[in-house]
Amino acid sequence: MNDTIKILGFAGSLRKESFNRALLRNTFSLIPDNASLEIFELDGIPPFNQDTEKDMPEKVRDFKSKIRGADAILISTPEYNYSVPGILKNAIDSASRPYGDNPFDGKPVAIMSASIGMLGGARAQYHLRQIFVFLNMYPINRPEVMVNFAADKFDSDSNLLDETSKKLISELIKNLVDWAILLQK
Amino acid sequence: MNDTIKILGFAGSLRKESFNRALLRNTFSLIPDNASLEIFELDGIPPFNQDTEKDMPEKVRDFKSKIRGADAILISTPEYNYSVPGILKNAIDSASRPYGDNPFDGKPVAIMSASIGMLGGARAQYHLRQIFVFLNMYPINRPEVMVNFAADKFDSDSNLLDETSKKLISELIKNLVDWAILLQK
Amino acid sequence: MNDTIKILGFAGSLRKESFNRALLRNTFSLIPDNASLEIFELDGIPPFNQDTEKDMPEKVRDFKSKIRGADAILISTPEYNYSVPGILKNAIDSASRPYGDNPFDGKPVAIMSASIGMLGGARAQYHLRQIFVFLNMYPINRPEVMVNFAADKFDSDSNLLDETSKKLISELIKNLVDWAILLQK
Amino acid sequence: MNDTIKILGFAGSLRKESFNRALLRNTFSLIPDNASLEIFELDGIPPFNQDTEKDMPEKVRDFKSKIRGADAILISTPEYNYSVPGILKNAIDSASRPYGDNPFDGKPVAIMSASIGMLGGARAQYHLRQIFVFLNMYPINRPEVMVNFAADKFDSDSNLLDETSKKLISELIKNLVDWAILLQK
Repeated sequence: MNDTIKILGFAGSLRKESFNRALLRNTFSLIPDNASLEIFELDGIPPFNQDTEKDMPEKVRDFKSKIRGADAILISTPEYNYSVPGILKNAIDSASRPYGDNPFDGKPVAIMSASIGMLGGARAQYHLRQIFVFLNMYPINRPEVMVNFAADKFDSDSNLLDETSKKLISELIKNLVDWAILLQK
Repeated sequence: MNDTIKILGFAGSLRKESFNRALLRNTFSLIPDNASLEIFELDGIPPFNQDTEKDMPEKVRDFKSKIRGADAILISTPEYNYSVPGILKNAIDSASRPYGDNPFDGKPVAIMSASIGMLGGARAQYHLRQIFVFLNMYPINRPEVMVNFAADKFDSDSNLLDETSKKLISELIKNLVDWAILLQK
Repeated sequence: MNDTIKILGFAGSLRKESFNRALLRNTFSLIPDNASLEIFELDGIPPFNQDTEKDMPEKVRDFKSKIRGADAILISTPEYNYSVPGILKNAIDSASRPYGDNPFDGKPVAIMSASIGMLGGARAQYHLRQIFVFLNMYPINRPEVMVNFAADKFDSDSNLLDETSKKLISELIKNLVDWAILLQK
Repeated sequence: MNDTIKILGFAGSLRKESFNRALLRNTFSLIPDNASLEIFELDGIPPFNQDTEKDMPEKVRDFKSKIRGADAILISTPEYNYSVPGILKNAIDSASRPYGDNPFDGKPVAIMSASIGMLGGARAQYHLRQIFVFLNMYPINRPEVMVNFAADKFDSDSNLLDETSKKLISELIKNLVDWAILLQK
């Protein structure tokens, strides 16, 4: 068992000012003492093609290695067209291959999402949960962090201002860490 | 109203020998007289980034234009990790942007899927249907074409051998064409 | 073709002061001139058992007959445990049987939902949409009427006060009626 | 911690010859030494009405008590209209109420399904998994037991003949028991 729970976080958007990337950065100050957070950026992962999956780009190799080394996964994602963004799903698809070499296998995972609309990314979260079944990941149930009307909840430097969201994220991370410790037993 | 219903088809896999790309090619011989099929290849669509969405690659511009010119859409897709392949979702995300310029709006659509497993891609199909709600597309309900155990249903030249699948695809296309004609009224 | 589009509405809750039953009652004043609304109450439909499905209770027989006579269906439902309420699903299951006698077949349908929480019943709506695929119903895509924080949006006599919700319901009904007229062609 | 893991099983069908009720009965012989199985029959649970939820029928009180006393839950369900049967959802809704008195909270759970069609109940299983998020239950991921073409897999006395299905159920139960033991830590 590790002394510190290593969390690997990644965001489902490549946009520089993405609310979800900001959400991840704001999480650093909400991590408990017995855990650490590292953020992995998904830019540079090419569209997956099974024909060339064994000729793996350095970026994908690096992503797989980071996932494998993590004790828990944290995904922060917007919702595109009522589902998981293609760029996030493509990163997951790429990392999960080739067959038999799935680094997500058995990992505890938590989701958060931010969107400018009313539902806060809910629809993307439930599709992700179905994806976790195949990947054999173990999502925590609560709290569900869905930051809606996100444009009102950050300042111009992408600092999260909303206290309710901060509290929920703290609780999410604490539960993820406890869950990771339990699953290591 | 058009005399011929123009169907645009695309597949959710980049693999050369993909069963789903083969399914589309096999569809040419099953198109009724009052319709035509054109296939668009999704390779070369880069990972979507909202920061650069207005500086659109030629490939995406072309995809959007083809969608806009079509009377109906036909998607043939595998299932990756119990959902829509990232490369397919990324192509849809890219084409649906920028905000207010969604060429899928109001289009009739049909789905088919092939997979080597028992469920034949069913899980990807239901996620696609939720995506269609946001895109404001009109999917047909029946028949549901889910070609399972696909490895046994094609010959070595990717010709579809399975008569049941052929019959279902013929019915799917016929229903799609009738649906497109109705929606043009 | 009918001169007046007959809409049959039913709610997914048996509670007397149910927000969703209230939503349906408030819809009467929002119906356009070329349509009518009748509400069917689901209380008294027993738990479905295939062994006795042919010995149909009067209530179920009546429900099936009303559905068959309608030009369009309107469902107003809460969300129970992140899905469709059992009592609503049971009513749908009962009406859809026995096999080959599905009165929902081909009907246009619209959904609205109200809930005291943030998501306004969204999760129940997407599960309903999957159910419609099997029933061969044709849901409209827009607008999605999800009345969240419902406790703040009605007065003590269950009158809907929220102007945005009223406007959305008017638009929903107008679109449903137009859709029903199109599908009759 | 219990010495024996007590599993409570219930089926999503009231039909006497239901394949899913048969699946549960066939599970008795596949239970490992450190576990026990009790089956609860859902007939007699009335349609849920929040107005009378505190005036609880004996049957619902009994169901809640059995759930509370169990170390793990096993659900065997058909798929009705591409989702969870209304009678199963109604039983879950009834047991989960009143608010704050949810006996499913924190329980490990496994699903199996049988159907006469090709998909073996898959669509009902994924809707159940979304329901588990709200109930705060912990489903196991693997194996997914979906007995398709069920009519061919039982003898006339409802004995399960299919060796693959038996093996999968054994593995499912073993994983559920191990999962329950882990979660008790």
